[in-house]
Amino acid sequence: MRRVRINVMEGENLLETLRSAGYGIVSICGGRGLCGKCRVVVRSGMSSLTVPSTAENAILTEEELNSGYRLACQARSTKPSVLEIDIPPESLEVRMKLLASGLTPTLSLKPTVRKIFVKVKPPTIRDVESDLSRLEKVLESKGLRRLRIGYETLKALPEILRVDGWKVTVSIFRGREIVGVEAGDRTGECYGFAVDIGTTKISGYLVDLVRGEVAESVSCPNPQIRFGADIISRISYAMNGVEAMDELRRCVVDAINMIIEKACLKVGCSPGGIFDFAITGNTAMHHLFLGLPTRYLSLSPYPPVSGRGLELEASKLGLKGAPDSKAYLFPIVAGFVGGDAVADMIATRIYSDRRMSLLIDIGTNAEIILGNKDGLYACSCASGPAFEGAHIKHGMAAMDGAIEKIWIDTETLQVNYKVIGGVKPVGICGSAVVDGIAWMLRVGIIDSKGRMVKGSRMFRMKIEDGLPAMVVASKDEAGIDRDIVITQQDVREIQLAKAAVYTGISILMRRAQVRPTDVEKVYLAGAFGTFIDPESARDIGMLPEIPLARIRFVGNTAGAGARMALISSHTRELAERILSRVKYVELAADRDFQKIFVDALELPNRRRELFPTVTRIIDMNISRIRGDREPENRRREQT
Amino acid sequence: MRRVRINVMEGENLLETLRSAGYGIVSICGGRGLCGKCRVVVRSGMSSLTVPSTAENAILTEEELNSGYRLACQARSTKPSVLEIDIPPESLEVRMKLLASGLTPTLSLKPTVRKIFVKVKPPTIRDVESDLSRLEKVLESKGLRRLRIGYETLKALPEILRVDGWKVTVSIFRGREIVGVEAGDRTGECYGFAVDIGTTKISGYLVDLVRGEVAESVSCPNPQIRFGADIISRISYAMNGVEAMDELRRCVVDAINMIIEKACLKVGCSPGGIFDFAITGNTAMHHLFLGLPTRYLSLSPYPPVSGRGLELEASKLGLKGAPDSKAYLFPIVAGFVGGDAVADMIATRIYSDRRMSLLIDIGTNAEIILGNKDGLYACSCASGPAFEGAHIKHGMAAMDGAIEKIWIDTETLQVNYKVIGGVKPVGICGSAVVDGIAWMLRVGIIDSKGRMVKGSRMFRMKIEDGLPAMVVASKDEAGIDRDIVITQQDVREIQLAKAAVYTGISILMRRAQVRPTDVEKVYLAGAFGTFIDPESARDIGMLPEIPLARIRFVGNTAGAGARMALISSHTRELAERILSRVKYVELAADRDFQKIFVDALELPNRRRELFPTVTRIIDMNISRIRGDREPENRRREQT
Repeated sequence: MRRVRINVMEGENLLETLRSAGYGIVSICGGRGLCGKCRVVVRSGMSSLTVPSTAENAILTEEELNSGYRLACQARSTKPSVLEIDIPPESLEVRMKLLASGLTPTLSLKPTVRKIFVKVKPPTIRDVESDLSRLEKVLESKGLRRLRIGYETLKALPEILRVDGWKVTVSIFRGREIVGVEAGDRTGECYGFAVDIGTTKISGYLVDLVRGEVAESVSCPNPQIRFGADIISRISYAMNGVEAMDELRRCVVDAINMIIEKACLKVGCSPGGIFDFAITGNTAMHHLFLGLPTRYLSLSPYPPVSGRGLELEASKLGLKGAPDSKAYLFPIVAGFVGGDAVADMIATRIYSDRRMSLLIDIGTNAEIILGNKDGLYACSCASGPAFEGAHIKHGMAAMDGAIEKIWIDTETLQVNYKVIGGVKPVGICGSAVVDGIAWMLRVGIIDSKGRMVKGSRMFRMKIEDGLPAMVVASKDEAGIDRDIVITQQDVREIQLAKAAVYTGISILMRRAQVRPTDVEKVYLAGAFGTFIDPESARDIGMLPEIPLARIRFVGNTAGAGARMALISSHTRELAERILSRVKYVELAADRDFQKIFVDALELPNRRRELFPTVTRIIDMNISRIRGDREPENRRREQT
Repeated sequence: MRRVRINVMEGENLLETLRSAGYGIVSICGGRGLCGKCRVVVRSGMSSLTVPSTAENAILTEEELNSGYRLACQARSTKPSVLEIDIPPESLEVRMKLLASGLTPTLSLKPTVRKIFVKVKPPTIRDVESDLSRLEKVLESKGLRRLRIGYETLKALPEILRVDGWKVTVSIFRGREIVGVEAGDRTGECYGFAVDIGTTKISGYLVDLVRGEVAESVSCPNPQIRFGADIISRISYAMNGVEAMDELRRCVVDAINMIIEKACLKVGCSPGGIFDFAITGNTAMHHLFLGLPTRYLSLSPYPPVSGRGLELEASKLGLKGAPDSKAYLFPIVAGFVGGDAVADMIATRIYSDRRMSLLIDIGTNAEIILGNKDGLYACSCASGPAFEGAHIKHGMAAMDGAIEKIWIDTETLQVNYKVIGGVKPVGICGSAVVDGIAWMLRVGIIDSKGRMVKGSRMFRMKIEDGLPAMVVASKDEAGIDRDIVITQQDVREIQLAKAAVYTGISILMRRAQVRPTDVEKVYLAGAFGTFIDPESARDIGMLPEIPLARIRFVGNTAGAGARMALISSHTRELAERILSRVKYVELAADRDFQKIFVDALELPNRRRELFPTVTRIIDMNISRIRGDREPENRRREQT
């Protein structure tokens, strides 16, 4: 446990306050009281906090509540006070714990940038060496020889040396280049910024490089969305020419700079205190961010411009940091398997595990990796944005008002749902759509072709635009003035998306000569992967039949990998090594692709023998429902 | 001899045509037919050239003229034709011959940038590695491993690879970074650009890095002149703040880019074909060009910001070259002994000579170096711009209309002069002012204090603004509507300037424990140093009494050193080594500075014993003139 004292103002949220104070508290659900990962123990000052919320009472045990346990995201202060809090190790992101999965990659704290405080000898009339030579002499006495110096740092050097009587803090990149000089002793503060550029969302992490902790996490939508929700539309837009490319590049850079400022503001540091960046994202996001041409990513055989990791000057990329700060771009595997997949592998360590693992990072594109320490296969499939709620009639992101879970009572056939934020529902997020479809399948509302069964006597069925739809929340219950439904078209969208993912997994398994039962671990990563119900995913046939207990949710592993690349520079060498062991599989080049895909469009699959458990469950359910109902019907008919 | 064939248009000058064709012909006098360094032998086509000029007839022997020798700067074509010309080795700058002095530093051709032509394997559906990896594979097969790549080059890579069927020319900097990729085979063309940023003049040299030749030389005035002719005024201006600093920086960068364009236009290449820059200049010019603060250069103890050589990205400096081209900045010795002095040492090789040498680079500041292979002493003295014609009543730069030489007939006391360009005189350049003063001293018009002797019966004396002045060219002869004179004030200016130089030399000699007669070589460098008459310089006491035969004119050795740094990268390592062997002497810190300076203000010196030869010559002259005249006077008196 880590004991900390913090000052809170009235109304402050404990999670935010702790993060502002520089403690990287884990939270998977985004502070909604769902994941239970932000447990802290309040040692003194409990009386100035709100009483435990419904969420806390649901998640924490009686014993824990009595011992002072709270969910940091739920507790708020009722008056200004000083709190004494113990942070359990598992709530702290110090060691990059990926708590959703219990993964704990231990990292040595070895950032690329090291700060050193030195006293420089001032010049005299008998000793007129240059300012830089004087600084170099002190550094040489500490074993740091022949360092280069950043141009902007050099320009600022004379003034900074003289601010505080020739006492300065020097920031040194990889032991070979001076990337910053600050007046006085500033060794206690050194930041990096990790970014995962998703097609839909950009996640940023301000990382304290002295303590190896996440100081603040901030995210924002990817503003490129206005040029198209999917990658291909953005690549098409980029083909309009250099200006279009630059427009795409600049809007992402601006968004990143905005979240940098936001994070710094919260932590109370300046962007000038950031000396290192680590950036990951899929190949298209990588190219668009760097201003590399994406034209050839859309033309077979889709070669990327650059595969290996790049260390560039952050200023060239337009990033807001120290003027001579550096930026590391993750290596990428192929045209559609990007640095996010490399970061995923690093965070989950599947490259060093002897057990066969399957990693699925579901975003707008799904990246799939299968393998173990003896080798890895990777592919990408265009799952599309349906899982993220796009192209779904009432689809929306997982935010307040979104139905995040749907289940059907097999007794009453009542459709139940849970809404984020406890407000009236206004839409359905991707994971709930999958839930809904899985349940519709289980209770026989849709058949294996995905067709809504006509004449289904479910009272929640209706016809919209001439096609059947299932009402999840009626107009009366909803926060909008119409029924919230899952339509026949929504089912089709999900069928396409899940078939793409299943096909990818299936082809990788064949390449690796692995059967579903050989897979000992399944990692579901990405925002969607964190919320999805694994049973639903399996039942619709998105995943092959792997025992549910083997499935782990690992959250944003791409972001975790990026943070690791800041905290430990070894991670970057590791990334290159991993890359050399990944075999990229081009799905379109597989001669069975079409056949597997078409089979996978059915629910769970045209080849029912591949899904014995799911088939049995569905058959059992349906026959039971028919059994329950049919006698009643018969009874009615008899009356 | 190098045999070349060139096409000339009507009216074309042979020197310019040869240079445009890529042959670095030596010319010290700027194409004025004075130095005789641009000798070439016309083998065929003589009939389509102008007949030999007066200058040619004066410089070339009868035998040479008969053998087809011409001064390239004087010969012009009278009609379009093809010429066959032999260029004697000594007229060719190939080996950086500094012909004015007969110095021939032999250099191995080893530029920092090497071009290599490769064929890259295009991607296929079964081989989808990145464009960069494909390029790297070919380079690896040629032993070039783990190269970095410039960001702009990376961005352009995909398109360039596809222009000419995956055949490209790669430019590699120091065997470690790809700084350019061009479509097709471009190995025959690779340029560097050398710059000497003088306080008054910027000299640029487009260097062919494939052949190791100067392709074109261009110069322009330093536009910072509008902020002050001398260094101190510019430093003062820079103190107005960041914008003022930037204004000073930008105007020099613009000027350099202008001469780059000019040189490229003449040679017919594009600035994008320049991959390397080598830049030298005094410390203040170095700092102002880089945008380094100059504030502390004006405050004791005048430490520079950076001493060592810097290799930067040219684009950061705003230079027009290939987008990822590099720029090398010469190391500097101290606050007032800059990279130009280092370049001087490199070009003259005094660092490796066992003989004691003295090098004087006279610009607005004079930099003085004394020593041999066992060690070197350097200092700087504020000689001021008088030697360059500034602060002199009729002073002007050495251009058409400038009186460049003055001599007084000791028989008739007639003042004679020579004008550049053979036009009517409009002013006097620095070297001629020194001539004039030396002659005024020799014939007794001025005394050892520099006072113009009242009542001197010289018919060319007059009173201007209440002070005496010597008429050099009367209003009738001049191209302006008044007499061109050397005034009492002009004499004072030169006294100050020459005393500063003498004091510097004198203090260095004492430090090195060297007497004037120990100095076996004297190098006069810089534009002024090329035109000055060494006898005049010695007689006014600017130089100690060293036999005149030991004096060599070496022209712009700073520019030569910069060119050498392009042609051979060894030069840069050499520069650092030399730097470590130079002992900087701060003149102001010498306790005898004041005394030596005050003595040196007299002509040739208050301590006449230091100038026995000069004193004897002056005494002889004057007594002869008095002897000549006095009898006449007496005769007159008698009549």
